[in-house]
Amino acid sequence: MWVFLAFVLVFFMQAGFALLEAGATRMKNAGHVAGKNILSFALATLAFWAVGFGLSFGDGNAFFGTTGFFVDVLDEKAGKAFSSLAWADVPLAAKFLFQVAFVGVSLAIVWGGLAERAKLMVYLLFGTAFSGLIYPVIAHWVWGGGWLAKLGMQDFAGSTVVHLQGGVAALVGAILLGPRIGKYNKDGTANAIPGHNAVYGVLGVLILWFGWFGFNAGSTMTAQGALFAYVALTTLLATAAGALGALFAAWAVLGKPDIWYMLNGVLAALVAITAACAFVKPWAAVVIGAVAGVVMVFSVLLFERVLKIDDPVGAFSVHGVAGIWGTLSTGLFAAPDLVAQLGVGQPGLFYGGGLHQLGVQFLGVAVSFAYVWVASFLVFGLLKATVGLRIRREEELIGLDISEHGVPGYPEQLPHGGAYRATASAETL
Amino acid sequence: MWVFLAFVLVFFMQAGFALLEAGATRMKNAGHVAGKNILSFALATLAFWAVGFGLSFGDGNAFFGTTGFFVDVLDEKAGKAFSSLAWADVPLAAKFLFQVAFVGVSLAIVWGGLAERAKLMVYLLFGTAFSGLIYPVIAHWVWGGGWLAKLGMQDFAGSTVVHLQGGVAALVGAILLGPRIGKYNKDGTANAIPGHNAVYGVLGVLILWFGWFGFNAGSTMTAQGALFAYVALTTLLATAAGALGALFAAWAVLGKPDIWYMLNGVLAALVAITAACAFVKPWAAVVIGAVAGVVMVFSVLLFERVLKIDDPVGAFSVHGVAGIWGTLSTGLFAAPDLVAQLGVGQPGLFYGGGLHQLGVQFLGVAVSFAYVWVASFLVFGLLKATVGLRIRREEELIGLDISEHGVPGYPEQLPHGGAYRATASAETL
Amino acid sequence: MWVFLAFVLVFFMQAGFALLEAGATRMKNAGHVAGKNILSFALATLAFWAVGFGLSFGDGNAFFGTTGFFVDVLDEKAGKAFSSLAWADVPLAAKFLFQVAFVGVSLAIVWGGLAERAKLMVYLLFGTAFSGLIYPVIAHWVWGGGWLAKLGMQDFAGSTVVHLQGGVAALVGAILLGPRIGKYNKDGTANAIPGHNAVYGVLGVLILWFGWFGFNAGSTMTAQGALFAYVALTTLLATAAGALGALFAAWAVLGKPDIWYMLNGVLAALVAITAACAFVKPWAAVVIGAVAGVVMVFSVLLFERVLKIDDPVGAFSVHGVAGIWGTLSTGLFAAPDLVAQLGVGQPGLFYGGGLHQLGVQFLGVAVSFAYVWVASFLVFGLLKATVGLRIRREEELIGLDISEHGVPGYPEQLPHGGAYRATASAETL
Repeated sequence: MWVFLAFVLVFFMQAGFALLEAGATRMKNAGHVAGKNILSFALATLAFWAVGFGLSFGDGNAFFGTTGFFVDVLDEKAGKAFSSLAWADVPLAAKFLFQVAFVGVSLAIVWGGLAERAKLMVYLLFGTAFSGLIYPVIAHWVWGGGWLAKLGMQDFAGSTVVHLQGGVAALVGAILLGPRIGKYNKDGTANAIPGHNAVYGVLGVLILWFGWFGFNAGSTMTAQGALFAYVALTTLLATAAGALGALFAAWAVLGKPDIWYMLNGVLAALVAITAACAFVKPWAAVVIGAVAGVVMVFSVLLFERVLKIDDPVGAFSVHGVAGIWGTLSTGLFAAPDLVAQLGVGQPGLFYGGGLHQLGVQFLGVAVSFAYVWVASFLVFGLLKATVGLRIRREEELIGLDISEHGVPGYPEQLPHGGAYRATASAETL
Repeated sequence: MWVFLAFVLVFFMQAGFALLEAGATRMKNAGHVAGKNILSFALATLAFWAVGFGLSFGDGNAFFGTTGFFVDVLDEKAGKAFSSLAWADVPLAAKFLFQVAFVGVSLAIVWGGLAERAKLMVYLLFGTAFSGLIYPVIAHWVWGGGWLAKLGMQDFAGSTVVHLQGGVAALVGAILLGPRIGKYNKDGTANAIPGHNAVYGVLGVLILWFGWFGFNAGSTMTAQGALFAYVALTTLLATAAGALGALFAAWAVLGKPDIWYMLNGVLAALVAITAACAFVKPWAAVVIGAVAGVVMVFSVLLFERVLKIDDPVGAFSVHGVAGIWGTLSTGLFAAPDLVAQLGVGQPGLFYGGGLHQLGVQFLGVAVSFAYVWVASFLVFGLLKATVGLRIRREEELIGLDISEHGVPGYPEQLPHGGAYRATASAETL
Repeated sequence: MWVFLAFVLVFFMQAGFALLEAGATRMKNAGHVAGKNILSFALATLAFWAVGFGLSFGDGNAFFGTTGFFVDVLDEKAGKAFSSLAWADVPLAAKFLFQVAFVGVSLAIVWGGLAERAKLMVYLLFGTAFSGLIYPVIAHWVWGGGWLAKLGMQDFAGSTVVHLQGGVAALVGAILLGPRIGKYNKDGTANAIPGHNAVYGVLGVLILWFGWFGFNAGSTMTAQGALFAYVALTTLLATAAGALGALFAAWAVLGKPDIWYMLNGVLAALVAITAACAFVKPWAAVVIGAVAGVVMVFSVLLFERVLKIDDPVGAFSVHGVAGIWGTLSTGLFAAPDLVAQLGVGQPGLFYGGGLHQLGVQFLGVAVSFAYVWVASFLVFGLLKATVGLRIRREEELIGLDISEHGVPGYPEQLPHGGAYRATASAETL
């Protein structure tokens, strides 16, 4: 029941991503941006049921599982093919539900990098490949008894498995798509393309935060003992620090405490503490969260202004950069008593554990990054060469609601899509 | 506690209906459309507490209960009057809460058919009659130890009791009210009246989906054993298939993958799997959901274009048609091992169970349809003859926010209601 | 796990407050109004962790706790400093989480009184002082083994501790800030400043109602026995009555059933039943809720039209007045069997308990009101004399999104803040 409850909370994070991404982009794309999350979660569910769950958690070799496809969760024999998921008393159906919700989160992260200019077909095809083939490999390495698990990598609830994967695929997509029309001027300076609804952004982040308690605390897989509450506490403290860290960093750099940076600071801290929540002390959680918030702000500015990569909602900075920081952080802060209790890896550098655990964490991050980078590049490249990644210029100008779906998302406020705005102001196109 | 948690999730579905219905209608009615859900749920709570719960689950005859009105849930003697609700260990208060949340769902479905043209008084009066008198009768027949229960009708969580009832009453209301101004042209062709906010629609559907895990999994009434997780799994698989089925059907028929059809496809699949979720295998859940999504699309088009009945959010197609399909589907797909475990009815046609269960399901659907049709017709007809069902033409043009409540829902964007839009464009009135 | 679940629900109430307050105010302030809830909750978390939790629940004297600051929840010795929190089997981390969510609710209430004209810095500084120093004192008196607890004051889930405190601080803030520009005419009559989005208001209230089941039912601290479900039942019945009471009162007084009054009626009833939910019978819950809804309507009109205090979302009427009524109500309606079961205080006047319990409740309300009034006045006064409470006139006209955060909340609909509206209509400024 605990795992089921956690699944329900993590499932609801889809609403958070839909609102956050829609709020952070423009009115002409709002129905598409929000609605395609349901579409891609539906596809991910079927692909992960058919193939991905077996590849992730089925018994197999050090690299992927080879059993348990189209799993019949009531078939006792099938259930035994999942020896890495052998938590006592949790029904296999609940395990599947919890894991498929994680896939949905990872996939929703990817879409951030593609926002406002990719074809609907790309969501259908890349979403299926990612959920069925790309994601499960890392999941197997870290959580499915694969080679990183055997090395003692610490990634409690998925800073690397879920967030770094999603963030890297988002980055690859953003690079291959190129920036949105109007993002960069001829002299290379960037224009702000502000999100159309800050209230959606706030609600989206609060829903994500709400669901994240299922994400992290649910990963304890049991409500016995005090661990689940402890994990929720470190998660909360880190997040509070991350919101403030990002707000003050943005205030210092930009001159104003931009609400959107604070929202991304909440998420960056959540991402970072996801790996560490069960391994570190409360004070360390505050440090991890604050650093994640601050680093995220500089990363967003680096990508936007220096590297000139248009990642509309900062998906790589929030999930990739903070995911790396979070995964590495246990190599610094993992406390001996908590490590001993969990039986995964070794204490961190600051507790006299030396560089061993930090090295394992670094290795895990590096190979995961490289694998997802290459795999995403191959799939996106294949799509680019066949169906194409990007909509046409006129379609982008009028907006995806009308061009891809035939129905405006706000028919009374923006009846004819972007063309309507074009008469009023070129800058917001 | 399990039942309490399920209640909380199902209660939250009120927010889903409020958002979905408001998003699918026009700005000038948005405050009214969303807000009257709270009003009607408040009335339903008091009416069901006073009368409906006793009629539904109190001991009585094969047709309705005759005990347990104004139930004092702490009175042990009163509790014993509910022998059909004798799940061990669940407090009577939790049972009441779970059931009243179901009534609220059924009632919210009704309102879909009345949207944008009914008087506020109709919501007050029909809502009270439906919650206190109409709904409880079918609930007693199927779940309260009534005659359909004794025949072995399979309706696990209410495709018929909750959804078909709401859908039929919505259809009756839509017919008696007639189409909205501007819906049909003189030559009988239909105009699209697009919903004003697709993001509300997406959020509403995700909230409903989230709550539905309480609806279906909660109906197991216990978190012991694996059934609750299994039910959630079939629910998820069916929904994924329904979203895709409806999207592709709309794509094929309309030429574009309309987001709103996908949203209704999620709901149609949820409605259909509600009866079947505990009785069928995962593969059958995928089939049931996909068929529900596709059939819903054609049903919406049939009602809009051929029958010319203006059901603004497709309430009957989503809840009525898919409710019928879902109830019948166990007659086809009910698997012997699951049926045996639950001890309700017999296996379906495709598992060699013959036509028996299909016949029982058909009978249950037919009599429920007929009963709700007649009862709704009587109550709506009585209201039409007395207080009247429909607001005046000028009120409909200016919108219900101003005409019924005196306050615009979007005072800065639409300060004077529909009159404001009228100057800009007649088509969206 | 029960307490953890309740924490998650109460945490989510932050989203409800963000939406309700944003919906009830103007577009030019929407991002600020919603977003500062995250900011203030982050601060409250850190302040309550460092100082407030120890002051509230640490062992100490009759007036405040003196142990347990920066609590290390894994340190068994530290845990023993919280003898007033000695519910068996609940981990200290879960207790902290549940209590910090309550602080967040109380703080969100305060902000209602300050809306649309206070400096961001006020939220930072007053929020820290309130969470770390003001709130914990009353929490200690009533729930932390302090002197009111010893007198037998009945405040089951915080009508006084959480709601009255927040409401009084909101009132003090509203008085010291003065009314918003344009609220009052030269002849002293009040202008309506309608909230910009009624759908946000409805969603916000439904989220608050959803979370409140965690608030009240969670305060039983255990899902054993039937109490938690009983508490949820009285909460639901009271709320239904409150929604209808406020709607009909507004209908009678204003001539139309204003949706916003109904929304506040839901909240007023929830506030009132919060103290009483475990002590009263279902019929009494209906009475308490209905009275709360009706009294709130008259209180809002009294403050707006007679006392001429601009409390933009009615924070004091909803949380203060209804909080007082709810706390006093157990002195009238507390039933002997429930009082005996809980072992707190004595039966109420209507059950032959005489005036004793009513006197205790009155004393608790009076001293809490006085304490928070004085403490808030001191802190707000200190801020007024140093950093200042109120933004400049031009900033208020253009809106807080642009003036305080540099980014419009609705850049496509209101690109330049309030200045944009000013050209169209002075009335909505």
